[in-house]
Amino acid sequence: MFNYKQVIVVRTDLEMSPGKIAAQAAHGAVGAAEAARKKRRKWFYEWFSEGQKKVVVKVKNENELLELKKKADKLGLPNMLVVDAGLTELAPGTVTALGIGPAPNEELDQITGKLPLL
Amino acid sequence: MFNYKQVIVVRTDLEMSPGKIAAQAAHGAVGAAEAARKKRRKWFYEWFSEGQKKVVVKVKNENELLELKKKADKLGLPNMLVVDAGLTELAPGTVTALGIGPAPNEELDQITGKLPLL
Repeated sequence: MFNYKQVIVVRTDLEMSPGKIAAQAAHGAVGAAEAARKKRRKWFYEWFSEGQKKVVVKVKNENELLELKKKADKLGLPNMLVVDAGLTELAPGTVTALGIGPAPNEELDQITGKLPLL
Repeated sequence: MFNYKQVIVVRTDLEMSPGKIAAQAAHGAVGAAEAARKKRRKWFYEWFSEGQKKVVVKVKNENELLELKKKADKLGLPNMLVVDAGLTELAPGTVTALGIGPAPNEELDQITGKLPLL
């Protein structure tokens, strides 16, 4: 049914509220989708017409998030790192989340397949 | 600093997990952003270049969400109602969230300005 998905990775060590997590996930989703629309048009439009499947997973800290970004870049997967402006709960410049894709399932699973759901 | 924002409205009566809420918010954000990109290009690009401000707020039930959608449509604000496919926590067809905008702050505040943050 779904050939494409977007994976949104959220740090759990920041003790963000549910609303804050939702906002960070939304940032990563829009940013990565826009990156895909520009660089991987087919992926974006296929994913969008399939119903834009999204999966939200978690990592334990900043290091794990930055490692994932490196891997996504290496594989050429469109992504966006979310850096919080620090206007509310967090210190300015805090890295909170990473949106990756849309991309084909099998490409994303190489780097996010083992991450637990948030 | 910000002239535009996107408001994501989430139902609180469904007892969704934080990950589920994040996924619904991300759906609404991407869907409404894409609607804006097509119909209100200036709003979309101004918002994106400002740093895509997002606010996540809550409503108590489906009725409140559907009323908001009517108001957004009436004002011509791009929006997307999120209808869950029902593959995980919810019954298929459950209306979970609504993304509105990006739009100018003052237009959005007319209909969402009094809603509490999630």
